[in-house]
Amino acid sequence: MPLVRISLLRGQSPEHIRAISDGVHRGLMEAYGVPADDRFQLIHQHARDELVYDADYLGLHRTDEIVIVNIIAGNWRNTAQKKALYRAITDNLVENPGLRPEDVLIVLSPNERDEWSFGNGVASYVKDDAA
Amino acid sequence: MPLVRISLLRGQSPEHIRAISDGVHRGLMEAYGVPADDRFQLIHQHARDELVYDADYLGLHRTDEIVIVNIIAGNWRNTAQKKALYRAITDNLVENPGLRPEDVLIVLSPNERDEWSFGNGVASYVKDDAA
Amino acid sequence: MPLVRISLLRGQSPEHIRAISDGVHRGLMEAYGVPADDRFQLIHQHARDELVYDADYLGLHRTDEIVIVNIIAGNWRNTAQKKALYRAITDNLVENPGLRPEDVLIVLSPNERDEWSFGNGVASYVKDDAA
Repeated sequence: MPLVRISLLRGQSPEHIRAISDGVHRGLMEAYGVPADDRFQLIHQHARDELVYDADYLGLHRTDEIVIVNIIAGNWRNTAQKKALYRAITDNLVENPGLRPEDVLIVLSPNERDEWSFGNGVASYVKDDAA
Repeated sequence: MPLVRISLLRGQSPEHIRAISDGVHRGLMEAYGVPADDRFQLIHQHARDELVYDADYLGLHRTDEIVIVNIIAGNWRNTAQKKALYRAITDNLVENPGLRPEDVLIVLSPNERDEWSFGNGVASYVKDDAA
Repeated sequence: MPLVRISLLRGQSPEHIRAISDGVHRGLMEAYGVPADDRFQLIHQHARDELVYDADYLGLHRTDEIVIVNIIAGNWRNTAQKKALYRAITDNLVENPGLRPEDVLIVLSPNERDEWSFGNGVASYVKDDAA
């Protein structure tokens, strides 16, 4: 179900980007119970002056390795699950590709169960239509 | 009212992309009653490794002709209208440019009536301000 | 707290883009009370045929200097605050870089307080976790 936009600065290796992609998805599996094959991600690489971030907001120091992960996901998760998601994704990206935890920003964008169509023109998560 | 982000892989012809753009907008007109001139779309073309999708999630087979349509639209539509939208957009894109229906993914992102400003610094859909 | 996506056509100068980035952020500070250092923006530059807009929707005339500002921001602002935001951002961009007010489009995408993690894997705006 999630649709994930991952934004980062240009110039990272394909392996680096792949590790981020993998770690974000693994976090969604671990904390939200998302199936392994429910994986849809858009990677946006930005020039240096196209990604504006404050290096010290809330007292955390950020660097040009910053990754901004914007996840559109159904609004039926509670705060505990969201916290578990931040923890899981961040831990994964610290492990590989070795990001600093301060460089992982995650923003959730909620929507409803009937707002997903994964093909064939049907509302994939609405019961009478899912077949 | 809708703001539409259309994401697809690089390398398609301008005609192909134009047909997708047209078909998505026509679907919004048909199913949501969006006026013909209420058309605002952002096309994001991605390199192969910047668009990650599962080829078989929910038992539908997807290909590199995949199109992910993320529509920010007011939250005042019901499930029947959303279903009609998925059907209309998908049928349009099957007709032209000839996409497989399994390759059309649609994700709706809801917002409120007072969250739109179409210019001049006013809340375009709030009555006392619309003039 | 806001995460801002600014979309415009390629070919503008870095100074032009920087003025837009500054003016949007200043508007958020003025109307929403966003701290100066709470600044996170993604600039998306599009080729001419990747940014589709209607030049006359709602009777306002738009040009290729159009800027579409999509702001993910917490849903706890009221209509008056949103109106003040449209006014502030638009006035700022008219002043510098000198945009026409008709060319400034703003779309808000709401989310919840527990949907933000600004680093370290914590829910930054949830009290017991913010430390």
